[in-house]
Amino acid sequence: MAGPKVHDEAILGAISKRRDLINDAIPEELPIHRPKRLYEASRYLLDAGGKRLRPTLLLTTAEALADVEPLSTNYREFPTFDGGTVDMIAAAVSVEIIQSFTLIHDDIMDDDDLRRGVPAVHKEYDLGTAVLAGDTLYSKAFEIMLDTGARSDRTVKALDVLATTCRKLCEGQALDIEFEQHSDVTPEEYLKMVEQKTAVLYAASACLPAILQGADDKTVDALYGYGLDIGRAFQIHDDVLDLTVPSEKLGKQRGSDLVENKQTLITAHARKQGLEIEELVDTTDIDAVTEREIDNAVTEIERVGSIEYATDQAYKFVDQGKARLEVLPDNEAHELLCTIANYLIERDY
Amino acid sequence: MAGPKVHDEAILGAISKRRDLINDAIPEELPIHRPKRLYEASRYLLDAGGKRLRPTLLLTTAEALADVEPLSTNYREFPTFDGGTVDMIAAAVSVEIIQSFTLIHDDIMDDDDLRRGVPAVHKEYDLGTAVLAGDTLYSKAFEIMLDTGARSDRTVKALDVLATTCRKLCEGQALDIEFEQHSDVTPEEYLKMVEQKTAVLYAASACLPAILQGADDKTVDALYGYGLDIGRAFQIHDDVLDLTVPSEKLGKQRGSDLVENKQTLITAHARKQGLEIEELVDTTDIDAVTEREIDNAVTEIERVGSIEYATDQAYKFVDQGKARLEVLPDNEAHELLCTIANYLIERDY
Repeated sequence: MAGPKVHDEAILGAISKRRDLINDAIPEELPIHRPKRLYEASRYLLDAGGKRLRPTLLLTTAEALADVEPLSTNYREFPTFDGGTVDMIAAAVSVEIIQSFTLIHDDIMDDDDLRRGVPAVHKEYDLGTAVLAGDTLYSKAFEIMLDTGARSDRTVKALDVLATTCRKLCEGQALDIEFEQHSDVTPEEYLKMVEQKTAVLYAASACLPAILQGADDKTVDALYGYGLDIGRAFQIHDDVLDLTVPSEKLGKQRGSDLVENKQTLITAHARKQGLEIEELVDTTDIDAVTEREIDNAVTEIERVGSIEYATDQAYKFVDQGKARLEVLPDNEAHELLCTIANYLIERDY
Repeated sequence: MAGPKVHDEAILGAISKRRDLINDAIPEELPIHRPKRLYEASRYLLDAGGKRLRPTLLLTTAEALADVEPLSTNYREFPTFDGGTVDMIAAAVSVEIIQSFTLIHDDIMDDDDLRRGVPAVHKEYDLGTAVLAGDTLYSKAFEIMLDTGARSDRTVKALDVLATTCRKLCEGQALDIEFEQHSDVTPEEYLKMVEQKTAVLYAASACLPAILQGADDKTVDALYGYGLDIGRAFQIHDDVLDLTVPSEKLGKQRGSDLVENKQTLITAHARKQGLEIEELVDTTDIDAVTEREIDNAVTEIERVGSIEYATDQAYKFVDQGKARLEVLPDNEAHELLCTIANYLIERDY
């Protein structure tokens, strides 16, 4: 594997400090009030934890742009380029709420039982409450993003990014479901789907601070591109982990994508190499598959070079993304954005 | 019954012309593209028809404010108070899309089979597609409202109204579901729920043109109040119709609210009069109830004066709403807004 190795301690420390700030801000921005059950359900998944990668990306990008030392500046009154302030925590929480909303609705669609080690919202509560909790989060994300104190024209641009991102997330999820019925998805089609389903929210997280602070279009576009690239890399790496990390560590059955006929960059590549990917695992029942079957399947996939191909692609996207950051000043936060990019493809869970 | 009688032909003619414009604009604002199944599902309920009451209200309020003759002005380039133009059709379609999104998700929650004479979206397609179609419509409503060409500060206000409205619609739906488990809902609690579940979207429709055109806060607030009042009246009248209109005409079983233990202003009032409302109909199975049972229940409810009470309340709200319109110039569109208010409580379906 090419690429620099992450300094785990540094990156995890930087992430965890921002994560704590986000965790503190969530109940402030999304208090539980009447109807209580609705708001409890809306908070359920947010309170179950998570790495808060997207809001961390947002806060770090803000710091890189403002050229301030990481964690030195009050995020609630963060400086803009023209002497004003905006509430970056609000923007960061808004993005995390969008992420939570999509997970709640995705779990309904996939009828998944578990998420982040706790029951999915439609299992812990009920279907109706889960649909409504997602819708409530959606509205709250917009209300919160409307309330950063940014100049009107910048708020309009930020809302435009948020609304377009949400629409693309829906389109990506629809494509993902559609692909389960197809066995001829090309790597290009897969990457387009991943862009919509996953990468656009990273792209939004990276460019929103630039919009709110009043950066020029070139900077906004470059940061959007950086987010798209590392978001694609994140998803490709997720697909690699599904095949290569032991089930205990993964928290779910290794190879579940193969069992459930999920299309990934790996399966698309393997199929192009002539491998009959649907024949590799006999069952479509996740509880019936054996580790030996998965082992054999992974060996075949490795033999045609598909895991290596996917890993190379992930590194390529990360390198491309980091190169786009040259619009930023040379500072510690800029470096941290490179490290976060590396982390996304070097994490082992 | 008090109140002026609607000139049916005039009002229906006025509504139908605006409805046709909205119907033409829906495919323009929400074209079907890839992923095709997602967009077809998103359009399914919108294409099934509807009276387009909310967008009609929006367009008519715009005309009353601008003091132009109804249907004389290009809605796509509608004059603002400071010499600019905004796209009122976009705003009107946005509101109709929000309405459609809530219906799709409400039908999932209530597991209703039919809507507007066609299968509910989750029946015609599937649960996942219906959840996602609603989410897509939600995003599109925001994207379209961002694209009216209004001044940034006004667009921010309009988006704020839209986001807050959506959040309240969710809260109202949650309360409605919660109330099904309660048998002690007071008329005040019911009215609060109706405000959130139904009336806020009428309120948004009435005040959005004022915001986009640049009217003062007093006008915006008065129009919001008008919308709330007639929205409340609309829902109360709906509850009256459920008991008083024959099943054939209603398109569903008369008295379904009683069978399903729905809380309405009528049941809340009857309970206060000492009527044991839960005992009136034995079954909770809509297919098992007889017309005779419903007849007897309605006779009891009429005896304690609850239908008359609800009707009086609806008229009171309509009168209150119309009085708020005094902020508007005296013109034909203003008159039409009064007629629409009357229509909402005099329609018999």
